Amino acid sequence: MKTLLLIGMGPGHPEQITVQAINALNRASVLFLLDKGEAKDDLLNLRKAICERYIQQPGYRQVQVSDPVREDSAASYEAGVEHWHKQRAALFARLIDEELGMDECGAFLVWGDPGLYDSTLRILERVRALGGPTFAVEVIPGISSIQVLAAQHRIPLNRIGEPLRITTGRRLEKADLDNVVVMLDARCAFGQFADQDLEIYWGAYLGTEDELLVAGKLHEVGERIRRLREAARRRKGWIMDCYLLRRPLKS
Amino acid sequence: MKTLLLIGMGPGHPEQITVQAINALNRASVLFLLDKGEAKDDLLNLRKAICERYIQQPGYRQVQVSDPVREDSAASYEAGVEHWHKQRAALFARLIDEELGMDECGAFLVWGDPGLYDSTLRILERVRALGGPTFAVEVIPGISSIQVLAAQHRIPLNRIGEPLRITTGRRLEKADLDNVVVMLDARCAFGQFADQDLEIYWGAYLGTEDELLVAGKLHEVGERIRRLREAARRRKGWIMDCYLLRRPLKS
Ligand SMILES: C[S@@+](CC[C@H](N)C(=O)[O-])C[C@H]1O[C@@H](n2cnc3c(N)ncnc32)[C@H](O)[C@@H]1O
Ligand SMILES: C[S@@+](CC[C@H](N)C(=O)[O-])C[C@H]1O[C@@H](n2cnc3c(N)ncnc32)[C@H](O)[C@@H]1O
Repeated sequence: MKTLLLIGMGPGHPEQITVQAINALNRASVLFLLDKGEAKDDLLNLRKAICERYIQQPGYRQVQVSDPVREDSAASYEAGVEHWHKQRAALFARLIDEELGMDECGAFLVWGDPGLYDSTLRILERVRALGGPTFAVEVIPGISSIQVLAAQHRIPLNRIGEPLRITTGRRLEKADLDNVVVMLDARCAFGQFADQDLEIYWGAYLGTEDELLVAGKLHEVGERIRRLREAARRRKGWIMDCYLLRRPLKS
Repeated sequence: MKTLLLIGMGPGHPEQITVQAINALNRASVLFLLDKGEAKDDLLNLRKAICERYIQQPGYRQVQVSDPVREDSAASYEAGVEHWHKQRAALFARLIDEELGMDECGAFLVWGDPGLYDSTLRILERVRALGGPTFAVEVIPGISSIQVLAAQHRIPLNRIGEPLRITTGRRLEKADLDNVVVMLDARCAFGQFADQDLEIYWGAYLGTEDELLVAGKLHEVGERIRRLREAARRRKGWIMDCYLLRRPLKS
């Protein structure tokens, strides 16, 4: 049977990868690298560098695939995502069919942790549902960007014994503000809460040489984050950032 | 200056540790191992085995410390935790003072990820506030038990584009049930929601040889989890488990 490894590669730092992930990389004869368009060449190169650093077995193949672009014009966000996932399922089915021999092992290199806001697992489920090639799946956890965010700011993600919310910029709500981590936010959703008494811990390009960190009272540093973010995005052509918002504890 | 490394060791699997953590282990001249009482000897041994496997520099010292026991008799949960943290801060201050030479580097080996339901960072903050020894802190992220939970069940932690809640058994609420991860639950808090249409993905001793996994409809597998959990806890003298609860998506 064909085996697919979903390998969590961490968020960019070449040492933020586990021994288990390195061993998994060395088991695979084909590495699938999804290329998300020119702006993200850097991300592709980061992953390639990690592979070169740790893969000792010779003779593996890298298959670079252009990820279908998600159209933002769809009637609704959900419909857009749905259409995009269908295209990706067809693409993955073809890759598994054509690029992977019987009893071969292929690896998808996943940014951060495969369990957090990553669609690879869902797409593979769809491939299965389409009744295409049969395959086994193994998931190798990886360090997520939000863990690096907390580590670099030297803070715990949760307050003592309290719940933690992880959400997207799109879904950030006032009810979350006690303690919430926000990912996938292209629009600085924190801006709507500038009137609240909040602390923000922000990080971009976490784990890479370009890492940026800002922490402080939201109403004091919010504008600086916005400007820094915009300047960095222009300079590099892309940005990945996330942040934690927290109400200060009364003491 | 003295340096303290908080090293995320992953949840037990000897390969679920990062290269960064291994390098940090090798930088430390003193390893602080908190021993949580006889029942948790296994946990101590798991960490020791990881150290032996990866530490190449000779001549490091292990300092085993008995963690103060938290008394459950305190007036309130918060007061109990507060008292416990004070005791631990005094203990840590003494360790840093007495066990670590000037310019030496000490490491606290943290279970899972230091950012998730771990108090080491907060205790070090208290030590600082007490005006004791001065020191620098570095945090090395680690794979958290909940990432291994998701990986072993081959599921994403979040549903598409939706928020994720992480909470404790004590704080689990009906409002969380769309999609929630529960940790630190000694009382099978899922039991109160047996009448709801929910899926549960449960795991214990994740990453270790004793790993247990159960998934299914809560009303079908809830009792089995409870029995399995109790039997395992009796046999080994301790248990660590966590789970994800999710409302099935209407399709
Ligand atoms: C599609 S999600 C993938 C998350 C990934 N699976 C993880 O565990 O980090 C992409 C989002 O993750 C966050 N992210 C990923 N890598 C990052 C990095 N190196 N620095 C800051 N944020 C990052 C950003 O919020 C970005 O919008
Ligand atoms: C004090 S918290 C520490 C969590 C840790 N920092 C982490 O990131 O996994 C302890 C809780 O973590 C969960 N846990 C830790 N290790 C586990 C394991 N190997 N298997 C299952 N659950 C685990 C359990 O819910 C346990 O009650």
